[in-house]
Amino acid sequence: MKNVPKSGLHSPLKSPERYRLYGDVAALMAQAMRDPAVEAYFTRLIQRVVPKSVIQAAGEVTTVRAWLESFAGDGVRQCARSFGVPGDRAGQISQGYRFPFGGVAIITPFNFPLEIPSIQMMSSLFMGNRPLVKVDEKVAVVMEQFVRLAIHCGMPAEDADYLYSNGKVCNEVLLAGNARMTLFTGSQAVAEHLVVDLKGRVKLEDAGFDWKIIGPDADPKLVDYVAWQCDQDAYAFSGQKCSAQSVMFVHKNWAEMGLVKKVEDLAARRTLRDLTCSPVLSWTNEKILAHIDNVLAIPGARLAFGGRPLAETEPEAAKVPSCYGAFQPTAVEVPIEQAIKEEHFGTWTEELFGPFQIIIRYGDEDLDKVLECCERMEAHLTAAVVSNDTYFVNKVLAATVNGTTYAGYLARTTGAPQNHWFGPSNDPRSAGIHTIEAIQLCWSGHREIIYDQGPMPAGWTTPTAS
Amino acid sequence: MKNVPKSGLHSPLKSPERYRLYGDVAALMAQAMRDPAVEAYFTRLIQRVVPKSVIQAAGEVTTVRAWLESFAGDGVRQCARSFGVPGDRAGQISQGYRFPFGGVAIITPFNFPLEIPSIQMMSSLFMGNRPLVKVDEKVAVVMEQFVRLAIHCGMPAEDADYLYSNGKVCNEVLLAGNARMTLFTGSQAVAEHLVVDLKGRVKLEDAGFDWKIIGPDADPKLVDYVAWQCDQDAYAFSGQKCSAQSVMFVHKNWAEMGLVKKVEDLAARRTLRDLTCSPVLSWTNEKILAHIDNVLAIPGARLAFGGRPLAETEPEAAKVPSCYGAFQPTAVEVPIEQAIKEEHFGTWTEELFGPFQIIIRYGDEDLDKVLECCERMEAHLTAAVVSNDTYFVNKVLAATVNGTTYAGYLARTTGAPQNHWFGPSNDPRSAGIHTIEAIQLCWSGHREIIYDQGPMPAGWTTPTAS
Amino acid sequence: MKNVPKSGLHSPLKSPERYRLYGDVAALMAQAMRDPAVEAYFTRLIQRVVPKSVIQAAGEVTTVRAWLESFAGDGVRQCARSFGVPGDRAGQISQGYRFPFGGVAIITPFNFPLEIPSIQMMSSLFMGNRPLVKVDEKVAVVMEQFVRLAIHCGMPAEDADYLYSNGKVCNEVLLAGNARMTLFTGSQAVAEHLVVDLKGRVKLEDAGFDWKIIGPDADPKLVDYVAWQCDQDAYAFSGQKCSAQSVMFVHKNWAEMGLVKKVEDLAARRTLRDLTCSPVLSWTNEKILAHIDNVLAIPGARLAFGGRPLAETEPEAAKVPSCYGAFQPTAVEVPIEQAIKEEHFGTWTEELFGPFQIIIRYGDEDLDKVLECCERMEAHLTAAVVSNDTYFVNKVLAATVNGTTYAGYLARTTGAPQNHWFGPSNDPRSAGIHTIEAIQLCWSGHREIIYDQGPMPAGWTTPTAS
Amino acid sequence: MKNVPKSGLHSPLKSPERYRLYGDVAALMAQAMRDPAVEAYFTRLIQRVVPKSVIQAAGEVTTVRAWLESFAGDGVRQCARSFGVPGDRAGQISQGYRFPFGGVAIITPFNFPLEIPSIQMMSSLFMGNRPLVKVDEKVAVVMEQFVRLAIHCGMPAEDADYLYSNGKVCNEVLLAGNARMTLFTGSQAVAEHLVVDLKGRVKLEDAGFDWKIIGPDADPKLVDYVAWQCDQDAYAFSGQKCSAQSVMFVHKNWAEMGLVKKVEDLAARRTLRDLTCSPVLSWTNEKILAHIDNVLAIPGARLAFGGRPLAETEPEAAKVPSCYGAFQPTAVEVPIEQAIKEEHFGTWTEELFGPFQIIIRYGDEDLDKVLECCERMEAHLTAAVVSNDTYFVNKVLAATVNGTTYAGYLARTTGAPQNHWFGPSNDPRSAGIHTIEAIQLCWSGHREIIYDQGPMPAGWTTPTAS
Repeated sequence: MKNVPKSGLHSPLKSPERYRLYGDVAALMAQAMRDPAVEAYFTRLIQRVVPKSVIQAAGEVTTVRAWLESFAGDGVRQCARSFGVPGDRAGQISQGYRFPFGGVAIITPFNFPLEIPSIQMMSSLFMGNRPLVKVDEKVAVVMEQFVRLAIHCGMPAEDADYLYSNGKVCNEVLLAGNARMTLFTGSQAVAEHLVVDLKGRVKLEDAGFDWKIIGPDADPKLVDYVAWQCDQDAYAFSGQKCSAQSVMFVHKNWAEMGLVKKVEDLAARRTLRDLTCSPVLSWTNEKILAHIDNVLAIPGARLAFGGRPLAETEPEAAKVPSCYGAFQPTAVEVPIEQAIKEEHFGTWTEELFGPFQIIIRYGDEDLDKVLECCERMEAHLTAAVVSNDTYFVNKVLAATVNGTTYAGYLARTTGAPQNHWFGPSNDPRSAGIHTIEAIQLCWSGHREIIYDQGPMPAGWTTPTAS
Repeated sequence: MKNVPKSGLHSPLKSPERYRLYGDVAALMAQAMRDPAVEAYFTRLIQRVVPKSVIQAAGEVTTVRAWLESFAGDGVRQCARSFGVPGDRAGQISQGYRFPFGGVAIITPFNFPLEIPSIQMMSSLFMGNRPLVKVDEKVAVVMEQFVRLAIHCGMPAEDADYLYSNGKVCNEVLLAGNARMTLFTGSQAVAEHLVVDLKGRVKLEDAGFDWKIIGPDADPKLVDYVAWQCDQDAYAFSGQKCSAQSVMFVHKNWAEMGLVKKVEDLAARRTLRDLTCSPVLSWTNEKILAHIDNVLAIPGARLAFGGRPLAETEPEAAKVPSCYGAFQPTAVEVPIEQAIKEEHFGTWTEELFGPFQIIIRYGDEDLDKVLECCERMEAHLTAAVVSNDTYFVNKVLAATVNGTTYAGYLARTTGAPQNHWFGPSNDPRSAGIHTIEAIQLCWSGHREIIYDQGPMPAGWTTPTAS
Repeated sequence: MKNVPKSGLHSPLKSPERYRLYGDVAALMAQAMRDPAVEAYFTRLIQRVVPKSVIQAAGEVTTVRAWLESFAGDGVRQCARSFGVPGDRAGQISQGYRFPFGGVAIITPFNFPLEIPSIQMMSSLFMGNRPLVKVDEKVAVVMEQFVRLAIHCGMPAEDADYLYSNGKVCNEVLLAGNARMTLFTGSQAVAEHLVVDLKGRVKLEDAGFDWKIIGPDADPKLVDYVAWQCDQDAYAFSGQKCSAQSVMFVHKNWAEMGLVKKVEDLAARRTLRDLTCSPVLSWTNEKILAHIDNVLAIPGARLAFGGRPLAETEPEAAKVPSCYGAFQPTAVEVPIEQAIKEEHFGTWTEELFGPFQIIIRYGDEDLDKVLECCERMEAHLTAAVVSNDTYFVNKVLAATVNGTTYAGYLARTTGAPQNHWFGPSNDPRSAGIHTIEAIQLCWSGHREIIYDQGPMPAGWTTPTAS
Repeated sequence: MKNVPKSGLHSPLKSPERYRLYGDVAALMAQAMRDPAVEAYFTRLIQRVVPKSVIQAAGEVTTVRAWLESFAGDGVRQCARSFGVPGDRAGQISQGYRFPFGGVAIITPFNFPLEIPSIQMMSSLFMGNRPLVKVDEKVAVVMEQFVRLAIHCGMPAEDADYLYSNGKVCNEVLLAGNARMTLFTGSQAVAEHLVVDLKGRVKLEDAGFDWKIIGPDADPKLVDYVAWQCDQDAYAFSGQKCSAQSVMFVHKNWAEMGLVKKVEDLAARRTLRDLTCSPVLSWTNEKILAHIDNVLAIPGARLAFGGRPLAETEPEAAKVPSCYGAFQPTAVEVPIEQAIKEEHFGTWTEELFGPFQIIIRYGDEDLDKVLECCERMEAHLTAAVVSNDTYFVNKVLAATVNGTTYAGYLARTTGAPQNHWFGPSNDPRSAGIHTIEAIQLCWSGHREIIYDQGPMPAGWTTPTAS
């Protein structure tokens, strides 16, 4: 990291053949990952270290493959497009380039051991950086195998470092190596610490207390679909996604069609056995129970469903070590009048990284209160507005800021395919992932070169000083 | 600042008529500033508080006017262009928008009392933010008059706050008001402090130890032009520009044509009387003399010209209060072999915000040493490569990172007209000013809305959980 | 035209200072046109030659002013942005430029004597072309005055030719001058002739049989608004706009709210006296009556309102010379089952450039027939889908192709402000007006320059022939 | 062709899943073509019908493969990016889309039986069109195999028609099918005919009398490289490329280094045996000899090298049927003073689609004459400026218009890899191939949809008529 120059390994003006090299690496990696054996290998490897279902684990692999495919061939160099604007005299033109930072770092968490570090590492390389990659040490083996595949497909081995360490050692390495930019995905507490240590040279994708607002235009033909999407958004991988639905504002028109009961029924299908109800890696049952009690203490709050350790309904859950959680998909309903109060707001908006959500019913007259809740939250990652009512959707979208917001009857909070931007908003430190715009934002900076090659202006003579 | 929502005063989805409002404000302000009386008023007002020449002061006014003109009419809404990418099914499309941050702040220094705060304030407003503006208290009257003109031309008075205060009070206000983003232009020391206080929610345009490399293709027809540009870059406004030339690497081929002597002669034309040699506001003569002594202590270093308090050659300079500097345009020459040494590098690369520059001669065999100097500097604002030699220019540009780099025989380090990007690079916290790209970078964030309006996929039935 | 080189008067690589020159011209012209005296002058001048109401005439002037404003300052050079993509080896980069055509021509009709020729002439100049401008000879005085204003504001007089002639002479001039590109706005018959003469080197904005589909989601709160918009779209300037509403498909839900009667009442307010009902310049009363009879001969067709020479209700209309029309705002209703038939389709879809429209009622079951009508029409200029029903709007938009289509409850077919694209679609010869994209499409072509400056690949030796 | 609607098979608003479908087709086709057996099959198949060398034939295959790779995954939908600009009131936004034309046609020649039709067919499909493809009937088998591969890799068979016919039949089909747009690559004579028949609904890539200007900055280290590039540009595939070098303007400084003699020596290596000297498919030896005689009749013209039927030096060339040519690589030198004359200009600028080029020496004082020659030519496809002299290169580029122009010491006229635009310029009918911009230009049109969804402006009441 220390040895790479600030101008990086390549740029539009330096070793541009490396853009093509990485286009080839992307093509060959995608081709390799289309091989069913390779796909199955990574899927199982993810499952070895993270307790997610086959579908969820395989989803990481296919997303990464589709993403790599999209940058094959000349796709990488398209990320380094420059632009030019005519100048003030013959021979002058301003060219705006995207330049790398040089030595950079990537720190990612346990819940997506392949998807997040692989895409961010390749993104940083595409733009000419030399990354040090550090994945949560419990799951780091997955990314190690990806790095080996990349080298096999033509990535020069010396283009990146892969660090097995805890956070403390990593922190020291970043400071010693003078990381020009660090991409951090993980908890808000660590993020705030890193920002200060690294003097703001970071991009963050930290907390996500993600909301879904289900609008007034209830449609009986859609209620099963919406309920299924809610179950997936809140409880897939037991809610251990930064995009998981943390609160669902349900308009009375939908509530009266039995939406909440349908979500309950769907959640009840989940089992530890097939990992559709996963162990919870960062919250124990005790902590979860305590949080539920806190929320239930809000006047009028009531348990909608769930609320108990999973072992009470699925005995084999008792085998999950007590340092992890194993808990039923749970929802607590809170009245909007109480939710909005200063003294309760912090309680129910605490992010529980597990199978838990808040439900808030509202009517037409409550919409401004709902929007005020969204305004007062502190992280703005994903959101959903489930409605095809044009006025309603426009009003909600105009008043909110989440970086990845879905709108329409089929809206969701999770799912983030490789083809659209994923990241928080309303913060100059916001990171992004997936798209050309995200790659450019995180992994390059604007550099403007004004070519001014003359000839000398006709009839020029030395002017007076000024 | 506290009362404005995070979604700001307008966005592509909220009150878009305000983009047009600001297009009209820009048109009317530009029209007003074309009035010779208004132009003269602002020029004189700048001179009242900052000792710069008429040409330099008027330059601020015309730059701001031309910039405003460029955003007249529909120019503001063009800054808020969004894009869309087709989705995965009927009714689905991803739209990428630029959203404001809401309550923001702008802190700018004494040296450009009109140009920097006015352009940044209008830029922040264009994108839908509500700014608090704080200009160095010694010169704040200029921007106050600009704000009044803006209100006169239709800006709603409640769209911005203008704060007269010192830095400490301002700091408290930003924390109390929870500024979502702060643009800081000023010294590196304050910048590093602010970054920590504001937890990285900043964009910075801080130090500038700006270099010029004059290449091997010396041309006698151009030597007067290049010398004149060097004098302007180093000594206009006595070097009190963040873009001022701090070091000049002169290839022997140009040196042998007498380039340095020509710069000396041009610098000698400067006088306090017409403010082509300005008082120095942040360095006293004592500090300047001490710095010169430090640099001269490097083995082989020698005074090229200048080096004495201005009063020794222009007696009325004695009237400048001793809390300010009044110093001859000065250059010290340092041998490249010494400059590159670890023990000297920090000495000569200290930024002296006054009429002072380093000169380093080099030959073809020294180019890598020159580039190593550029690499080791810590701020990367402006730079110039004075050459039309294609191989040479490409090599220097590929190895360096300054945010605003001029290349070609007519290259300079200062001058920054309104039509191109101005700002540092190689830092994710880098700010920019002037262009659409700069406005978008500093004053908006990416928000992606995925419209997914159906209809429901044909034949959909509830899938199994995953 | 013949003397200007193919590379035009300027390009990103030639005399770029002229982009700035035209930015200044645009600024000064807009400033001049903000002067109430100048605005009134042009409004009256338009009225001298074209019988449109004050509001309609003034609309041309303010649209042109707002458009000019939007290209003031650096706005012109932004139209000539280039882009670059990294190449395959050091020193190589592909740059894509927009180049002018050189000598070009602009031919425009009587109905917008200021707006169309002025914007197209300035657009062609912005990109570096040298235009010959020919406006319908009956109204050419308006544009002459605009050209004089342009010269007054700094346009070099030799940059354009202004031709007073009939079409035949103009045709000869274009062939003799070898016009590289001709923009034609006018009738379809002339357009098809020109295309052959000029061997396809044209962009066209010709016919417009523009449709409005009013959707199923009828809303009593909006019925007055929608009726008013229909009256404006069909009858303002007696329908003599290429964007005028020629057919209105009304869903039964709206029809039952009395929409058609409301349009009739609004149309009945129009009078020749205040020119809200204008003389018709290209259709006599006889021709109009004959066309109405033809349409009424379709089985089931009936006169909805109007249908008579204006003199029968407003006696002073008798003074309009008989070579022009003076006719009541008229609507004929045709049943959808008949409209779709091969033998009738050509009859009711003939464009009558006057105060006449077709009304077709439909129900949910008829939507595919409505869309088939839209598909079979031959010109695809403007259109409107008056609905906020997401499924309905998406279905209609997906199945149609009109170049300027409005969608939503507030949709219209006329109005085209300067800020959005206006032009036909579904034809590679389509012209556009107003926006950066339109300017680039009509007045420039792509040129790609691949800079390949070396150095020579390391170790290169002459390969074998291939 | 007749049955597909004008709105095509897909668009951003219709069946967007088909963008992804074609991303997958592109990925799988590229993967298939990476298979050495498939690559060899297509290479041989090309050689069966076109007498080009292995390297030249294989070049087509790898270019197509790399091109397909670049649109894999989400690459296709990126071609259909839309943009949005904020409107004038809440609920209003203008969206600019790229829409297909519907039924379209592609007509391509014999010389690139795979590369041109395959890339254009896939490009048209990417944007949602339904193409009819017609390749020169002598070589059509190659493209047939490509179409079969496409279907094998997932392209719906009904998405395209493949027509085996002569030109006359094809013409009738296009008119009967009402082709909305036709892409024609081929001879100028046929092009001009088609333009009239199809009423200008075409994009053309027709003639190419391509020039190379070798600048004043001669460098002995580069002379072998430049000579080799000239031999390749003029004589590879015996000059039967539309990009082949037809005239070489050689500055005296290079001529004095023996550049022409070096080109002669390299050309002399070419043999029929290994197809580095190919039979000429559209010019017989008689026609070639007659053209050479015509040019030699210009006063001062002289044969530089070649000039005889190939059989005179390589006896087996006698076996080439006399309906084809088999001719030595030939160059005729013409003096600049004569070349510029009206009476000779048409003679030497006739395009001979075979192994023939003109050489013109010039000095510094002749540059304007050289540029006048470039101006007066009628087709503007490729060009090269072999120079690193900034003033010289800028001057030539500013004065010329060829659509694909190379500049720099390593400039060439042929080679066109898949990553940059290839096509003529200075004509609104110009086609392009390869890049996103080319795909959008040829295969889509601008459609602007202005969403105006309200709510109704506050306090709205019916205005007076206007």
